Parts: sequence; C-alpha cells; structure tokens
Amino acid sequence: MNLNLSLMEKNNRLAERNRGFFRAKKLLVLNVVSSPGSGKTTFIRETAAKLTGRLRLGVIVGDLATDNDAARLRTAGIPVVQITTGTVCHLDADMVAKAAAQMDLDKLDVLVIENVGNLVCPADYDLGEDLRVVLLSVTEGEDKPLKYPPMFHSAHVAVVTKSDMAAAAGFNRELALQNLERVSHHARIFELSAKTDDGMKAWLDFLAEQRTA
Amino acid sequence: MNLNLSLMEKNNRLAERNRGFFRAKKLLVLNVVSSPGSGKTTFIRETAAKLTGRLRLGVIVGDLATDNDAARLRTAGIPVVQITTGTVCHLDADMVAKAAAQMDLDKLDVLVIENVGNLVCPADYDLGEDLRVVLLSVTEGEDKPLKYPPMFHSAHVAVVTKSDMAAAAGFNRELALQNLERVSHHARIFELSAKTDDGMKAWLDFLAEQRTA
Repeated sequence: MNLNLSLMEKNNRLAERNRGFFRAKKLLVLNVVSSPGSGKTTFIRETAAKLTGRLRLGVIVGDLATDNDAARLRTAGIPVVQITTGTVCHLDADMVAKAAAQMDLDKLDVLVIENVGNLVCPADYDLGEDLRVVLLSVTEGEDKPLKYPPMFHSAHVAVVTKSDMAAAAGFNRELALQNLERVSHHARIFELSAKTDDGMKAWLDFLAEQRTA
Repeated sequence: MNLNLSLMEKNNRLAERNRGFFRAKKLLVLNVVSSPGSGKTTFIRETAAKLTGRLRLGVIVGDLATDNDAARLRTAGIPVVQITTGTVCHLDADMVAKAAAQMDLDKLDVLVIENVGNLVCPADYDLGEDLRVVLLSVTEGEDKPLKYPPMFHSAHVAVVTKSDMAAAAGFNRELALQNLERVSHHARIFELSAKTDDGMKAWLDFLAEQRTA
C-alpha cells in the first residue's frame, strides 16, 4: 500500500511538472480516454483535420502493442509520437514527458494524448493535462458511466461518439445523458460523429475557446 | 516486483484450487472477458436462455460498480452472484471462490464468470476456468487482437459479437479474422449476434460438447 501511495505521489508530482512545462509552452493539453474501440483515433484525426489553419495539433499515442493508431494519424499529416506500454494498462506522467521531449512543441497549439483503451487504470494517473476527455460510443451501452464511475467522474468533458450508429445500436440517448449527468455532472457533454461530421462544430469551437482562455 | 510476483503466485494457487473444486462438481467454467460494451451480458443471457432444458447455467458477474448486469440476468431467471470490485479492474480467484460459495453449484452444469469489462488487467488473472472466452464486437474495430495481445493470446475461444451491426460499422471481417488468427491462432472462433440469434447454434453446440468432453 505504501509502495502504491509513493508511486502515485511520484506520478502526481511529475504530472504537475508536465502541467507547468505545457503552460509555459502555451499548449492546451487533452488526455483522451475510453474503452477500446470507442473511436479515439478517428475522433482525434478528424479534430486535427478540421482545425487546420486554426489550431495546430500534435498527438501522443499510447498502446500496449502496435503503432497502428500512430500510423493512421501520421498518414493524415499529424505530428505523432507513439508510446508502447507493453503490458501496462495506462500512460503515466513520466512516459508523457519523455514522448513530449521528442516533439517540436513550439509548433503546436494543442497536444492530444490518446491514452490506452481502458476505462479503469488511466483514471488514477494525472498526466499534466488541462482537460480529461472521456469518449462513450453509442454502441457500448448507456450504463458505462455508472459502471466506471472513477473514470467518468474525473473527466472534464464527455463525448458521445459514433452518433451515426445510434439507431442501429438501439441507443437510448436520454438514458445515456441521464447517466452522464449523474456521474459527470460537472462535465461538458458533446454528441457527435467524427465520421459524418455531425456535431463536430460545437466541439471544435469549444476547443478553440479553451485554447485562448 | 517481489510483492507482485507473490500476489500473482497466490492467485495462481487459489485458481488451481478453484479448478479442482469445479471439476469435482462437474462444472464447465467459462471466464468471459472483453472491452466494456462488447455485449457480454446479452451474450450470456441468450446463451443461458437457449440452453434451457439442455444445460443449466449460473453466472458470477464482476463490475466496478452497479449490479445492472446481475439484475438483467436475474430477470431472465438465471442464478447470479454479483461481485463489486470498487476500483479493481479484474476479478481474482479468491473473489470467484467466495462468490461460488454463495451458489448451489450442484444445480448447475455451466458456470459463467462475466469479468470486468477490460482488455488488459484480467489477462493475468487465472480464475480456475476451463475456457477463457474473449469477445470482440464488430463495432470496436478489427485491430483489437493486435493491440491487446496478452488478452487475446490467452483466450481459448474468441467470439465476434454484434454481427448484425457489421454493415453499419463498416466491419472488415477478413481483416478481423486475420488478426485473430495472428494473435489467437489456437483459439476456436465463433461469429454471431446474440440479438438476432445468427450464428448462436454453433456456439451452443460447442458448449454442450465441451461440457460432456
């Protein structure tokens, strides 16, 4: 238990160091978390593409294995650094600091950290982000906020993704929003489809506002 | 590290004790793992319903919070014991032993353990199961086996779920099967939709065979 506490305390300090460093660089930093397959990479790629000429995005991608997501983003012309975690189910502040050191941060306005797909482990690890953004796809079921309260409770922003599949999935929108409200009542909620662009504008405007705030 | 090793060793021993106990009870035991929202509960409920009169199923359900899944199964007349893990991202052998002690195992043929929705943590924890069954829904993307190799590699059975949504999700079936083959080449693969019943028969026949094997 002491071992865990001291590991967490070490991470919390490194996260604050990251936060200070990123602030000095005038970066808006997002920590994007979700289940595997909620659409993080597509969401980030479309966000970057649609902010072209307005804000410059760079991405740090965490995965247990493969650099598939990094390759998908790189193909879209987005600066990317990949972190391969092996068997570790989350990123930590030290991994992020080392990855950020490989990027030209002065050429970026927004740094997006795509965390490992996992609704449990990443909840406890501050990375030094400004905003924690949790994704919930319409295909996952409406009860995920209730079943993974630490993650949803810790999020500043909740994004309902894949809204184009809501009908096919029999998604109960009202119930999902109710559940989000219960667990993440402080969070800004967006509903969108990165694939069809539906609802993306509100999210992009929000990001631009946050960057200048 | 030694602490972790000794915790794992303790779990491995308790898991073997469970395995012996379940064998003496002539139970076929499944450890069902997947991302959050891959359809574990619906899959288990429909499996139980369709085996009525042939095999008797009981379920142990693990979740961080809520007993929604247990309630869904109980409503369908299936014997259920709920384990609430708090912040722990997986079940362990001790939790399963305690939950099983609350069930009338002599009235069951198959014990299904629905693990916490997580593609990372549960991989390391043997529960004493006969078969580890990993679910991959068509809405999650074809690359999940490559991105979560410990979990997929450790599975005896891989079930592609929500096949009714394959077209809407733009699911690339061949690529998914290729990826499963690479990581889980030893695993039996089933493709089905618990909602439409498509593909369920092969899975149910397989279970019945395994029970008598």
